[in-house]
Amino acid sequence: MTRDYATVFAPATVANLSVGFDILGLAIHGLGDKVTVTKRSEKGVHIEEILGADLPKDPEKNTSTLPLLKMIGALNLDFGLSVKIEKGIPLCSGLGGSAASAAASVLATNFLLDNPLEKEELMPFALEGEALASGSKHADNVGVSLLGGLLLITSIEPFRYVRLPVPNDLQVVVWHPHQKIDTLSSRGILKEEIPLSLHIEQSKKFGGFLSGLYQNDFKLIKDSCEDIIIGPQRKHLIPFFDEAKKIADDYGALGFSISGGGPTLFALAEGSERASNIEKEVTSFFNLKNIGIDSTISKVNQEGSHLVT
Amino acid sequence: MTRDYATVFAPATVANLSVGFDILGLAIHGLGDKVTVTKRSEKGVHIEEILGADLPKDPEKNTSTLPLLKMIGALNLDFGLSVKIEKGIPLCSGLGGSAASAAASVLATNFLLDNPLEKEELMPFALEGEALASGSKHADNVGVSLLGGLLLITSIEPFRYVRLPVPNDLQVVVWHPHQKIDTLSSRGILKEEIPLSLHIEQSKKFGGFLSGLYQNDFKLIKDSCEDIIIGPQRKHLIPFFDEAKKIADDYGALGFSISGGGPTLFALAEGSERASNIEKEVTSFFNLKNIGIDSTISKVNQEGSHLVT
Repeated sequence: MTRDYATVFAPATVANLSVGFDILGLAIHGLGDKVTVTKRSEKGVHIEEILGADLPKDPEKNTSTLPLLKMIGALNLDFGLSVKIEKGIPLCSGLGGSAASAAASVLATNFLLDNPLEKEELMPFALEGEALASGSKHADNVGVSLLGGLLLITSIEPFRYVRLPVPNDLQVVVWHPHQKIDTLSSRGILKEEIPLSLHIEQSKKFGGFLSGLYQNDFKLIKDSCEDIIIGPQRKHLIPFFDEAKKIADDYGALGFSISGGGPTLFALAEGSERASNIEKEVTSFFNLKNIGIDSTISKVNQEGSHLVT
Repeated sequence: MTRDYATVFAPATVANLSVGFDILGLAIHGLGDKVTVTKRSEKGVHIEEILGADLPKDPEKNTSTLPLLKMIGALNLDFGLSVKIEKGIPLCSGLGGSAASAAASVLATNFLLDNPLEKEELMPFALEGEALASGSKHADNVGVSLLGGLLLITSIEPFRYVRLPVPNDLQVVVWHPHQKIDTLSSRGILKEEIPLSLHIEQSKKFGGFLSGLYQNDFKLIKDSCEDIIIGPQRKHLIPFFDEAKKIADDYGALGFSISGGGPTLFALAEGSERASNIEKEVTSFFNLKNIGIDSTISKVNQEGSHLVT
């Protein structure tokens, strides 16, 4: 069946996961962007409507449509595309909004064309959108939003990843303070060099975290899930970060850190009861400080982007 | 049964394994140090004999006996120890010789005392010997020589590690060129800072390597087993390193790099036939260049240090 349009939902993602800056990420349920792509006779890409956010309507400057311009060229399409974007992920939140919009639009276009490409083959196009937002090609958010799961990105070009095992009881708590951080400036504050000793220490924790996932060992995950390179450089961007982390730790979080470039915070927890307690306590704390914050609890979303209609 | 003496064999180790500087190592079969510890009425530690190497006979300055001085203190022994050291591992070879001597002597003493401590509990003592040799406490060689296996060292004090799964067909080829490199100077040439981008790239490879072990995926191990931080800074210490690596790669090595601080080189290979070809070709190459070299092929030694008599 040849379609005239396709609507795809692409989930929000939590990137870095404390121990894997630029290389680890997971997709969550619930929060995401929706993109509808419709065939039209006039060539090129036209943005018909953007709901939920104030974003550029120039297709070259929108993370959702720049990938489609590349796709049209690569696949030699003899028709154009009209695009409707429904942003469910807050802008500049650290939840992979630009990546999700790019993932949704390339997958919707692929459905429209009767799936000539595998999800993995859509990555080079989707990455063009992410590069527009973050200044360079980071596959952690895009790949995870598209493919779902908890992924280790081992190569961007060519795109390669490892789907990591996820313990059944693993819960992800996500808090989004009502505050914007621009991905570019959040990257800009990072030092270009780090001590070799920090590389070694962070690698121990990264290796321990991966082993904890493979061995289904929550204690090892908890002992390992600590960001000692990026978090300390960024946490001043988040008001009351240390206090919130202490609360999450006190209530048994496996880890607590900044998602992507922030300001979204996340915790990993074993079991839904513990996750719920952590969510409640940290949210109450921010509310006491008069900081508006949304929160959600999710298991890892293994499906990733999918067709809605 | 109370013993009067105990002899322990501690195996040689290949540390760093390309992707895990200071945190990964494996034990091999065949090559190792043997230490015999005998009770004597006179207190303190006496070095009776050292075979196979020219090493200090002052117990405070020998990596094998310094740990015993600490053990005597910690365990309140009311007798002394006489020590005989048989070095099978060449000095300053990058095969963990000082670590093996320390591991052998603490385990032999533990047997002499009817095993009051677990192997893991011997680590703090053994590390004192390693610190004497390398200037700081690196647990990769000591822990691996004592415990065997392919280990990820996640913490030195307290000592914590993860025993990584080893694919059944994994073979280790080890070449020891007749050349000495002092551990201290081999560490001294390393830059104290590294670019954040290199940390990220090396972490991808490290994560891929661990995943390859857990998933029994030789292709992933091969794609990942590359040292981009330490090797490039040290390889000039090894004559013809690049040429030898190319030969190993051409013959299908999963990885090829420097063991520990060098000059020992190692390759990982899938299957004994491939390992044998790689060993032969690299050895012939060094012989052509008039460089004497010993080589051996081993599976990972899961037992580690053990009682001989």
